This record gives sequence, structure tokens and C-alpha cells, in this order.
Amino acid sequence: MASGGYDFDLFVIGGGSGGVRAARRTAALGHKVAIAEEYRFGGTCVIRGCVPKKLMVYAAQFSEEFEDAAGFGWAVGDSRFDWPALIAAKDREIARLEAIYARNVSGAGAQIMDTRAVLEGPHEVRLIATDTVVTAERILLAAGGRADPFDGLPGAEHCITSNEAFHLERLPQSIVILGGGYIAVEFAHIFAGLGSEVTLVYRGEKILRGFDDDLRDALQESMVRKGIRVLCEDTIVAVEQTAEHRFRARLKSGGALDADEVMLAIGRLPNTLNLGCEKAGVELDRKGAVKVDAYSRTTADSIWALGDITNRVQLTPVAIHEAMCFVDTVYRDRPTEPDLDDIPTAVFSRPEIGTVGMTEAEAAEAFPEVEIYRTAFRPMRNTVSGREDRTLMKLVVDAGSRRVVGAHIFGPDAAETVQMIGVCVKGRLTKDVFDRTMALHPSAAEELVTLYEPSYRLREGKRVDG
Amino acid sequence: MASGGYDFDLFVIGGGSGGVRAARRTAALGHKVAIAEEYRFGGTCVIRGCVPKKLMVYAAQFSEEFEDAAGFGWAVGDSRFDWPALIAAKDREIARLEAIYARNVSGAGAQIMDTRAVLEGPHEVRLIATDTVVTAERILLAAGGRADPFDGLPGAEHCITSNEAFHLERLPQSIVILGGGYIAVEFAHIFAGLGSEVTLVYRGEKILRGFDDDLRDALQESMVRKGIRVLCEDTIVAVEQTAEHRFRARLKSGGALDADEVMLAIGRLPNTLNLGCEKAGVELDRKGAVKVDAYSRTTADSIWALGDITNRVQLTPVAIHEAMCFVDTVYRDRPTEPDLDDIPTAVFSRPEIGTVGMTEAEAAEAFPEVEIYRTAFRPMRNTVSGREDRTLMKLVVDAGSRRVVGAHIFGPDAAETVQMIGVCVKGRLTKDVFDRTMALHPSAAEELVTLYEPSYRLREGKRVDG
Repeated sequence: MASGGYDFDLFVIGGGSGGVRAARRTAALGHKVAIAEEYRFGGTCVIRGCVPKKLMVYAAQFSEEFEDAAGFGWAVGDSRFDWPALIAAKDREIARLEAIYARNVSGAGAQIMDTRAVLEGPHEVRLIATDTVVTAERILLAAGGRADPFDGLPGAEHCITSNEAFHLERLPQSIVILGGGYIAVEFAHIFAGLGSEVTLVYRGEKILRGFDDDLRDALQESMVRKGIRVLCEDTIVAVEQTAEHRFRARLKSGGALDADEVMLAIGRLPNTLNLGCEKAGVELDRKGAVKVDAYSRTTADSIWALGDITNRVQLTPVAIHEAMCFVDTVYRDRPTEPDLDDIPTAVFSRPEIGTVGMTEAEAAEAFPEVEIYRTAFRPMRNTVSGREDRTLMKLVVDAGSRRVVGAHIFGPDAAETVQMIGVCVKGRLTKDVFDRTMALHPSAAEELVTLYEPSYRLREGKRVDG
Repeated sequence: MASGGYDFDLFVIGGGSGGVRAARRTAALGHKVAIAEEYRFGGTCVIRGCVPKKLMVYAAQFSEEFEDAAGFGWAVGDSRFDWPALIAAKDREIARLEAIYARNVSGAGAQIMDTRAVLEGPHEVRLIATDTVVTAERILLAAGGRADPFDGLPGAEHCITSNEAFHLERLPQSIVILGGGYIAVEFAHIFAGLGSEVTLVYRGEKILRGFDDDLRDALQESMVRKGIRVLCEDTIVAVEQTAEHRFRARLKSGGALDADEVMLAIGRLPNTLNLGCEKAGVELDRKGAVKVDAYSRTTADSIWALGDITNRVQLTPVAIHEAMCFVDTVYRDRPTEPDLDDIPTAVFSRPEIGTVGMTEAEAAEAFPEVEIYRTAFRPMRNTVSGREDRTLMKLVVDAGSRRVVGAHIFGPDAAETVQMIGVCVKGRLTKDVFDRTMALHPSAAEELVTLYEPSYRLREGKRVDG
């Protein structure tokens, strides 16, 4: 029985990672919980984000494996890639994961509703499928976000976003990708690895704004070396269809690019459109994201929000973490603010980027003296395969406290490596602890514990060599 | 000029990782240093250990890559492997590294002597190539170790060790490997991955004595699943040649194994044979290793020793670390004991093992209460490739202090991951810091920061579930 005469103690709108975690945990505590999902359980991460993306990244990596094998004595016969086979394999895995998500929700005792749900009031939710209204003591908005369709672009209707990229009927022989963030970069690698001719168009000076500049330079150079065309300080001003499955993207700089597909990867928008926020007193910010306080509460007392719809940090583990903090705060009497500092993240380019903590530029602003420990080397495997890729590793150290405040890696296994450096940063470990740790040989990560002398220093933000 | 009328301030015997580091650092401080190497600069690690081994591990992994690609939509033509091509590629890379080693030594100002060198007295070294004696204020023994040739085995002369395995003229169609340590396991994977039929014979109950039992079980099961025959609690009692390039290994249990090669991987011996230790007052232990004190000094005041010849921990980074401590102690007036606690190590099987700190069994003896956090899962890539390999991850936590005192991983990238966990363990971080670290999704290592509840506990060494 729900308390206070409501139908439910908690009604969760959105069956993605954050909503599902909140629903499961709350139901497991004995509360009456419903969760509504209009499309498929699992949300962006499982259905059209992290998971299918990484499966396609794996697929795209094999072309380099075949090339690299030659240096090690292998003669590999001709290989052919079958796009529909990949899409089918990926879809089978996604369906399997989706079923696990739904089963876990039911298993915890939450009631699943396969419908779009919108706010009707501070305690009222309308179920669109049945056009009925249910009530809940509390409502949690976890409806996520969506790829920005760039409605202002003439011809936007000819373009795909990441949503469609996962379901194309055939591999485009050529593709133009607009954007310079991690989604644009990852899809550029996916399509290039599978054999497409890829052009990336980005209005900024260089890709991956917000990342450490060394990583940005290294990745962009690497992409160009792999044959990905990167056009910076330019953008697409119109897209036209020129034939069946052929499109022309007109550039601000004057030229035009012809391709089988034009993909927009310019950002993601919170899913607040027609959600009824205004009926419940839930305020949005200028970008349409739900405003929340430090505990994920909206401007309506009974309504909470987490994950991409709040546009804090658009990452699956963040949504899950916010969900656990929400449950602790509301249902376990332990008010807990989400801790969004020092989040380790990756870009699944090839090689990968892994990064955590402050960039060099951020540290230069934050501390009077900063030490940079930096190394670039050819990974052992590449010395024999002949591949040109070099690994870049960088530690950013606050000279005053000796703390490692940032780590930035461009190289194989950067994601796994930086996940664990994240623990070191969270634990506020000093560079001296890195120095005292025995190297594991031969590995790439051993470089991170054998950088005994700084490559250079920054004093009051200015570089001082030696 | 050397001090005290000696020819040199320091004479280093052995041009491996430890000797080279000591020679370089000491020479760089302005001392007169000589370093003698009888074979090739770089030592076991570069010439016939870590480096060529890992290159061969890379080569062996491609067969699984070709298989895995099919699940992702790739049709891969027939592949053929050319053993002499791999050996040649590997030898080119080793020669390149050897040249770098030698160049670095000369560059630092140390004098290179291409000769075997033996002790003639506490300050005297005989150079075998010229049959001359030189003197030095201090002598550093860094002559390393060698594969145990198992002289007691009838027919040992028909067998190869890891030395020969790097230079076989052809890939054996079948090979029997005696041993259950990491070298035996790694070569079993190398040969199996390249297409040999492999049988591993080990006298112990299960492979990898000293490692966490869960890892041992998981790896042994995995090897069997990959078609490697593992015969435990048995040994080889004699080896006979039955034809050209054909050998028969007779087993203690009664049977016999026929193969193209029989490889001995039963351990390594310190290189003290005929080194003249007795002439200089350098005592050896029962196993023939040079006895040293906490600062790497031998029983002769003027003679020091480090690396495999001391048989402390037979690892390259340990020898290098001991070298740096030696230089600090002797030449920089900073007495420093090598820190051999919590050394992260790997086994380059496929998938890999990465391990650091205490095993479950060790922790159970050391602490009144221990928490074990354990997970086993199929890596995302394998869900689509169809590969059966599962990843195992385990954290060992001292419940009293909450410190993570051990971590054990069997899975892809375990080596890179555990290098960084090594920093966490060295920094004495608690499990709570792991819990507070944001996951990086999708990765394997994220499991290590999302194991919120212990799988089981040990109280006074006894398992308590829940």
C-alpha cells in the first residue's frame, strides 16, 4: 500500500540507468514504486549509447588487428565486413540486456508501465497509453536526453544522428560528421575502421573541447594519420539530397561535401519537451534542463530529477550515482549530495583516451605551482606491427601538496587504466606514492610510476622548463 | 680518476636491467664506472625474457582475434603463421633495444667491457676475454640468473628451456612443457595460440603456486577449455629422442608423451657458478644466491649485489629499484632499503592475470576479519564474439582498517589495471575510496569500484557467508 492515499510512493518517469536504479532500490526497501518507459528499458546507455557504441568500436578495431598481425608473422587472407551481420549481432545483445533490465526492475517489486508518462501536477502523472492519471507521493524525472536534431539547419531532415547510426541498412561508403565532441570522434573511428571515408566538420579550433590540450592535439593528429579528414573552424550550413542515398553538405567556408550520410553529433538535449513540467511547478533552465538542488530535488517539493534530464554530467555512472544518493536522501534518511568531482571518463577512439581530474590548464589556474610529468612513446606492440600510433601519458601534480590532481592518457587500454587512477585521485594520493609503487613490466602503465622528474613546471600559470 | 688508487670507483658485473641502471646512475654522478657483460646488453629482460616473451604473446593473440572477428560481422580469409618471420621480427626489435641499452650506458660515461668478468678478490675483477685483472673500490654483482637446466633429469640434454624457445628453427607441432609457474604458463599460451598442441606437466596440485587460489583455478580451467592439456601432480622422469626432432617424455605416473619439443620451465638459478665469490669473501645461500643485507651489501664490505643473482624477487623492476637504492645508499649518502612490499605482477596468459598484495589465504592469516569482494562476468566483447572466457576480479579488504590489501584479476588488460591498483595499495587506500570513485562505463575495471557489498567474509581465517 502506498502512503498518504496516493497510488504509489514513488513514480519514476524513464527506464534508463538512473531511473531503473532508483526504482529498484526504492522498491527493495518496501515502497510501492512504478516506473514508466515509453520506448525500451535500458535508456540511452543500453539501447542507443554506450553499449551499442562500444560493440561497434570493437567491430571497427579488427581492421587494425588484421593489419598489425602481418608484422608478427601472420599472413591474413582477404577479409570482408558485413554491416547487417554486425547490426543484427548488436541488436541481439541489446535485446538481451534490455530484458535483464526489465527483469531486474520487476524482480525488485517495482511495477513496469510501458507507456510515455507526463506530469499533470505535483503528485499526478498522466499515462499516455491509457490516457489515465495516477498519483504518487513523490515523482522522479529520469527521462534522459536525446541527440540534438539541429532543427535550425536547412536540410536537417536529411541527416542522421547517433540514433539512426546504430540502425543504418548499409555501411555508408562515405560519411560527413558534424561535431567535435566524443560522440563525433567515436563514430568517426567506428566508420573509418569499418571502411567508410570519413570527414569530420567542427566549428571549434580543435576537437574535444574541455579535454587536456595535449590529448586533443595527439588525437586529432592520429585521426588525420588514419585517413580521417578533420575540418575545424568550419560548419555545415545546409544539407541537400542529390540522389537516392546521396547528400551534399554545404560548408560555411564555401565548399561542399558529398557523402552517403551526413551525421549530426552536435550535442544532446534534455528530454523535457511536453513533459508537463509547467503543470507541476518544475522549473527548467535556459537549455531546457530540469533545475535541481544539490540533492536532486526540483523546484517542486514532491518532484526529483536525475541523470541527463538535469544536464549536470551526461554519463551513465553519474545517473546511477545520483539515483543512489536520491534513495539515500529520501528513503534512508541519509541526505547525500552526489559527488561529481574527479570523474574518470574515456573516449573510445583508437587508441583510446582516458582522463580524470584537472587538465593542465585547469591546474595552472588553481595552483601557484604545477608539475607536469609527461611521456610519449611507441607502445611495444607497435614496434613490431609497424603501426605509427604513439602513446601519450601525462600526470598533473599540485607542487604544493604533491597531489596528483589529473591524469591524461592517449593509448591502448587508457579507459581501464584511468578507471583505477580515478581511485588514486579520489584518495588524494601524492606523486610520491606513485614513485614508491613498483613498476609492472612490460606494461604501458608502468610509465606512470616511473616518471621521476617533471617534464616541466608551471609557476603562476606560466611554463618554466626543467 | 678513480679514488684510492683503484682502476675504477665501481665495477659492475652484468649488463642487465639492474647493472645498467646502477652503472648509468653512478657514472652520471661523476664516478669512474666500468660494466662488463659476457653476452648481450639488456640482460634476461630484454634479450631472453620479458620483452621477447611479450612480443610472442602478442603474436599468439591474433589467432583469437581472427576467431572473435566473426561474431562482429567479419569474414576473415584463411590465415597462415610464419614462425621464422616472427623470430626475425622479434630479433630485430631486440637488437634495436640492446643497442639503446649499450648507448645509454656509454652516454652516461660508463666504460663498457664486452667480456665475462669474475671476482679475484674484494677489489679485483678478472676480465676473461683478455685474462687481465682490474681493480675497483667497489664491485657490484648483477650477473642475473638462468633457466634451471634440470641436470638431474636423464635426457635433459634433449630438452629446451625458454632460452632456446626464443630461437627454435620451426614452430613445434607439439610441445610438452614441464613446470607450473608463470614462465611455463606463458609459453603454453604462446605455443597454443600459434597452433602447437601443448601439454603442461606440473608436479603440484594446480598451476601458479603462490597466486590467489581463485586465479589459479580460473586460469587452469581456461587453459583446458582452450585445448591445453594440463597434467598436475605428475612430472617427467626421463626424456629420450625417438627420431629427428621427436622426443618422448616419460612420466612419473607411468605414461609417456611424444612431442616435437620438451621444454623445461622449472625455475631459474642465480648466475654465481664460477663467479669467484669464494675468492672475495662473498657468501652464497643454499640455493647458490648471493647473500645480501637490507641495503644489498654482500658479506664482503666492498662488494654489493642486486637483481636475480640475489634471488630476492626475480623481476626487472625490482632489479632496477634495487639499483636505484644502491646508488642512493652508496653514492648519494641516502641509505635506502629496497621496498619489496606490494609488488604488482602479471602473467601474460590469455586472458591475463594481474595481481598485487595479499592473496585471500594470506589475508586470512594476517587479519582477524577479512572481506572478499568478488565478481565474475563475461566481458562485453565476448558476449558478441561468443568466446567463453570470463573475467574474474577480487578485492581483499582488511575489515579492521578497511584497507584494500590485495587485488586479483583474470581478464583482458589485467596487467595495466593492476599496475594502477598497485598505487592504491601502496597508498593504503580504503575500500571506501574505491566506493566513492565514479565508474567509467563501459569498462571492465568499473566493476572494481562498484562492488558495494562483500561476497563473503573470513573471521579468524574461516569463511562466513553473506
